[in-house]
Order: sequence, then structure tokens, then C-alpha cells
Amino acid sequence: MRIIVLGGDGFCGWPTALHLSKLGHEITIVDNLSRRKIDIELEVDSLTPIRPLSERIGAWKDISGRDIRVETLTVGEDYDRLLGLIRETVPDAIVHFAEQRAAPYSMKSSGHKRYTVRNNLMATNDVCAAIVESGIDVHLVHLGTMGVYGYGSAGMRIPEGYLPIKLETDDGNLIDQEILYPANPGSIYHMTKTQDQLFFHFYNKNDQIKVTDLHQGIVWGTQTAETRLDERLINRFDYDGDYGTVLNRFLMQAAVGFPLTVHGTGGQTRAFINIQDTVRCIQLAIDNPPQTGGRVNILNQMTETHRVRDLAEMIAELTGATIDYVANPRQEADENDLHVANDRFLAMGLEPITLEGGLLNEVTEIARHYADRCDRAKIPCRSAWNKTRAAAL
Amino acid sequence: MRIIVLGGDGFCGWPTALHLSKLGHEITIVDNLSRRKIDIELEVDSLTPIRPLSERIGAWKDISGRDIRVETLTVGEDYDRLLGLIRETVPDAIVHFAEQRAAPYSMKSSGHKRYTVRNNLMATNDVCAAIVESGIDVHLVHLGTMGVYGYGSAGMRIPEGYLPIKLETDDGNLIDQEILYPANPGSIYHMTKTQDQLFFHFYNKNDQIKVTDLHQGIVWGTQTAETRLDERLINRFDYDGDYGTVLNRFLMQAAVGFPLTVHGTGGQTRAFINIQDTVRCIQLAIDNPPQTGGRVNILNQMTETHRVRDLAEMIAELTGATIDYVANPRQEADENDLHVANDRFLAMGLEPITLEGGLLNEVTEIARHYADRCDRAKIPCRSAWNKTRAAAL
Repeated sequence: MRIIVLGGDGFCGWPTALHLSKLGHEITIVDNLSRRKIDIELEVDSLTPIRPLSERIGAWKDISGRDIRVETLTVGEDYDRLLGLIRETVPDAIVHFAEQRAAPYSMKSSGHKRYTVRNNLMATNDVCAAIVESGIDVHLVHLGTMGVYGYGSAGMRIPEGYLPIKLETDDGNLIDQEILYPANPGSIYHMTKTQDQLFFHFYNKNDQIKVTDLHQGIVWGTQTAETRLDERLINRFDYDGDYGTVLNRFLMQAAVGFPLTVHGTGGQTRAFINIQDTVRCIQLAIDNPPQTGGRVNILNQMTETHRVRDLAEMIAELTGATIDYVANPRQEADENDLHVANDRFLAMGLEPITLEGGLLNEVTEIARHYADRCDRAKIPCRSAWNKTRAAAL
Repeated sequence: MRIIVLGGDGFCGWPTALHLSKLGHEITIVDNLSRRKIDIELEVDSLTPIRPLSERIGAWKDISGRDIRVETLTVGEDYDRLLGLIRETVPDAIVHFAEQRAAPYSMKSSGHKRYTVRNNLMATNDVCAAIVESGIDVHLVHLGTMGVYGYGSAGMRIPEGYLPIKLETDDGNLIDQEILYPANPGSIYHMTKTQDQLFFHFYNKNDQIKVTDLHQGIVWGTQTAETRLDERLINRFDYDGDYGTVLNRFLMQAAVGFPLTVHGTGGQTRAFINIQDTVRCIQLAIDNPPQTGGRVNILNQMTETHRVRDLAEMIAELTGATIDYVANPRQEADENDLHVANDRFLAMGLEPITLEGGLLNEVTEIARHYADRCDRAKIPCRSAWNKTRAAAL
């Protein structure tokens, strides 16, 4: 297949591009290197020594003998170039990672809110509009987030995208309907993903574009089968307060001998997935496109859920680190339940890598191995969701 | 009160600014004149001879003795100037009309889709972010649309924004919840308004900003008590296929002796409100802000519903015009029901102007009076929603 990977230089995009290339697909990476430029802005760097994109591509050619094409353009701005690329390559699938993906970064200031909204919404609209204008039957695979289900479980397993409800008519009858799960985003970043859902709903209804929207949990782990083949292919590991996920920051704190900083009570329950399972899920999504004329295909791309304080305890036990409970910079409930359906990927053959099985490897292979590259001052999260939370930090 | 009217030179914004000025409020109009520039792009003009904004403002000063301040800036781009204006004026309320508001215009091409998305979403996000950054307790009054309720009535009156539903838990119990009415937008324009709802939901939850979102029906009529005072104050009347509403195009066709062009079967049911009632509703919304800490206040700003073919028959009867059924350029159901709750504005004292009572006045005062300014070639709607609809035109 011919596949365009938008955001193919990023944390999920790069290993996805390699995995799909390995399987024999013709890959074009589109990226504007924004993630590397944000590292410059934040004065931080991937813990792992990621190489420039052209060096990565060259290394992959050395190792695999396969070419990956690169187009440097900004999805959401360079519309004519994106449309031209789609017309020229006639892709079977476009994988859309071209969004600013850190909730804390999206909440740092009005400028960061504006950047995230403009970047993410214009990117998604441009991709949809360009697919329609090209007239090509492309399968769009988008990375959404479990965060669209902000209301939590409410006593039930969160279904895959669509929620069956009962409505009371004026004459008192209950009728069954199925709706997009009601959105309750927890940050500007998460909000843009709920707005993305409306783009897909509309373009699918109006133009019958084929879309799979993957509501992904927090990705953990660094390497995949392909990125491990050569150090020049190594994947990004973010440990800073903006881009580092809770798990990576715990691992880093443990590796450099600091207490693990748990926000609030640590009663937040989150969904997780290993990076190797992410690239496998994207492959499965590409191999199982929705029918032409069908509605947007929504899958929950996660494999397990954990409370943050349980995670901290798991890592403390593995590493001997201590735990420090600090004020939560996020405007969120102290405690929440999360019970999520992921039957569809399991039915397609996904065999999840468990946190329990893979964590120790992350500690030794990545966090301890590259610990000397860590700037400890960057680990705490200082992006507060509002003035009340800022005052409490 | 100090009130900023964003988009205060437009069809709803201008009479709103005058009405609020008349009531003694201190008004600042913010506008980038985009609506007049779109007329240039479309090679069409308001049927009524609207005057340049500075002449309008001068005439209002002559007539009323009252000053209206004007700031020319683009909401959604000139963020720092918007924030500066909010800090300087310390407004009690901001009325937000600064969005591209024509569904057919939003569907003309990829460029028009992109413009509408960028303009509308960046405008709403900028206003919310600037209110938060200013720290001022502003009541934001936004013009939404009945089009957010795209699923139609489903056997019940459409409630004011929030829908009570019953959810089945895993152990088989039914629990009551209230959610934002599930969105099912019918055009790019309508989609941006459903995305706006998510901005308001998020900023209200995270920062407790006070928001009233008015889901408005199709506005009909041209003049209000204030715009009638002097011809230099006259309001805009759009009759072209992009910005002219169904009613205005019927009136224009009748006035120039053409058959009324009904799209499809004319079985579409739409909600309507007179422009005089619009400005009155906005005043009522400003006078009745939501409580600090309360959720987004959503009201349905409409007074009656009609099927399009019934409207055509009503106008044919008034004017002697004939009716012509043509292919529908919109991707929509041929027939829909619409039954809408509007109890809250009625409870605040709104006394609706009915179509039956006001239509003849529109025919004689506006459509016939200015008929010589009409370019008949501009009346048909040629913006098709997708390639199938385009092929059928």
C-alpha cells in the first residue's frame, strides 16, 4: 500500500513509519519538525539521542534497504502542497499524527492555547478537505485520545466511540439512539481532539470519506522492533513536565534518585498502551478499513488502566524510589474510575504488552542508560490549568 | 454597562449595537469589515444601500447624540489588540458575532471551508483565552445556531441546549444524565458552531467564564426601531445565493417577477426569528447573565418553525409569484420535523413578531422598494455540498 504518515518524525509517527515500511508499504513522511523546535523553545531534549530526520531515513535505508520519502510542510498551512502530494502519491491510507499532543503544553499560556487550536484544527480540516478535493478513496487513520471520554465511566464500560442512550419522547415513550460519546475535555489539547471528532463526523456524512479514529491511551515505552535495530533509529523519550507523560517522569525520577512526584492524591485513573502495541494497532486499523459509506470507525487503542498512585508504587517497588505527593496543576477531579472496552483490537489479534512485563526494561534500557542526558530541573510539571491551580503550586 | 460587540458592522451586529446604545450602554464595535469584503469577492451588494461604517456611526451620533467607538481588528488574528481592548474597556459583556455565518459560502470550495474554520474557531478561542487572561468577569454572549441540533426532533421538543438521557450501566440499571445535545452539523459553517460549543464548555469548566450561547434560527426582516430612524442607518439585506436566506431570496424573486426556487421537495422545516426580536433577545440575554460558577447558559433564539414549501406558498399568496421546485444543492434529508423549546425567552418577556404579521412589510418596504438594485443572476444558490449534489444542479 501507499501510505502517508503525517507527523512521521514524532514519538508515535516515527516508529509507525518504520513498522509500516518494514511490512513492505511505500511510506511518505510529512513533517514540519515542529516537535524538535518545541524542544528548543522549552530548552529540553529527548533523553534518547534522536538523530536528524535525514540521518534516520539514511540509517533505515542502510538497515532495511527500503526508501522512505520525506516532505517537509506544515499540515494546516501548506494546503496546496498537501493536496498536490495526495494527488501525486494516490495514497491508500493517510495516518494523521500532525497535532500538538501535550496537554500541559497546550495550557502554558494564551499563546500555547492558540497555537494548539490553530495547529490541530486546521491540520485536521486541511487533511479532510484535501481528501475530498482530490476525489481519491483514501482511508484516514487519526490518532484521537481516551481524553474525549472526559465524563469517565459512570458505572459502565466506555464503549468504542458510540454510546447507546434512551430518549424520552413528548408522549412518554423511551426510544433507543446511538450517539457520539458526549465530550468533556480536560485541556485545550483534549478539546481539539473532541472538535476533531466533529470534523470526521461531518466530512464522513457529507462526502463519505473513510475515517478510523483511534482513541489512544497514554503511550509508554520507547523502542519498537524496528527502532531497536540501530541506535540511529532510536525513538524519542520525553521526560519534561510538558511532554513527558506521568510514567516517563516517574521512571526518570527513579533513575536519577529523586522522589516520584504524584499530583494530588494520585487517584486519577488513566489508560495505557505500549509504543509497540501502538504501531501494531495502526497496522491493524489500516488492514481493517471501514466500509465505503459506513460511519466513522472508532476504536479504543489502550490495553490497561491504572491509578497514578498505583503506578508510582509499582515503580517505587521496582527501583526503590520514594513517593512525594504534590499539588495538582490540572483542573480535574481528585479521583476517577475508568473502565474501557477494547474488544475490537483484541478481536483483530492484538496481544498486549503489559506494564508489569515491560517496565523494568524501560528503567534499565532507557532511563538509567541515558540518565546523564537528563536535566532534572525539567522534570516537574509547572503548567497550571488556571489561576487557582497556579496559586497552589 | 460597557459592551463590546464583535462583528458590530454585520447584519445582526449593527442593529444590536444600535439597540444597546439606545438603551444607554457604552458600546465598542469591533469589526474587520470582512462581510463587506466578501461582497466584493462575490460581486454582489446588499440590496439596501448600507453606508460605510464611519458614516453609520456619525449618523447615529446625529440622531441619538450617542457615541459608538469602533476598533478595526480581526478577532482570531489580532490577539494582543483584542486583549488590550478588553483590559482597557473592562466590559461587562462581549457579544460575539465575529464569525463567517453563511452555510453555502462555507461549502463553496476548500478555500472557503478553510477560511470559515480558521476564522470562526480562532475567533471564539481568542475571545475565551483573552477573557481568561484579562482576569475580568465578562459575560460572553455568543450567537450559535439552531443547526447544532442537526438530528432534528426525534419525537420530542428540542430542549434548550442540554438533553436529559438515560444510560444503562453494566449491571443493568438506568441512570439519568444531562448532556449537551448531540451535534450533527449540516455544513462546515454549522460544524464550527458545534465546535464552538466545546470551547465554551471547556473554558467555562476550567476557568469559570460566564457564557450565554444563543442557538438562533434563520433571521428574517431587515429593519429595527433604530435602523429605521434614518436611511444612513439602514441594515443589510442579502439576497444572493450564498448569504441570502431562503426567505430573502423568495422575497427578492417575488419582487422582480421570478418564480420562487424551492430546493428539493421544500420539506425542510426551519426555525425563524425577526431581526427586531434578535436584538431584543440579546438585550434579554445580557440582562439575565448566568451565575458565576454556573454552566454555559444555552437558549433557543427562535420564535416559529415553518416548512420551506409552506413559506413559498405564503409568499406566493402575498405577491402572486409562482413556485419552481429545483435540485437541492445541500446534502440533507428531503423532509424533517422540528419542534423547539423557547420557553426561556418567552418567560423573560419576549413578544414575538410573527412572519404572518411582518412579511408583507418586508415585501413593500425592502424588496420592492430597492428592487432596482438587485442583480437577478445572483439569486440562485450554486454552492453544492458535494460532488453528487453538484452534478445534479
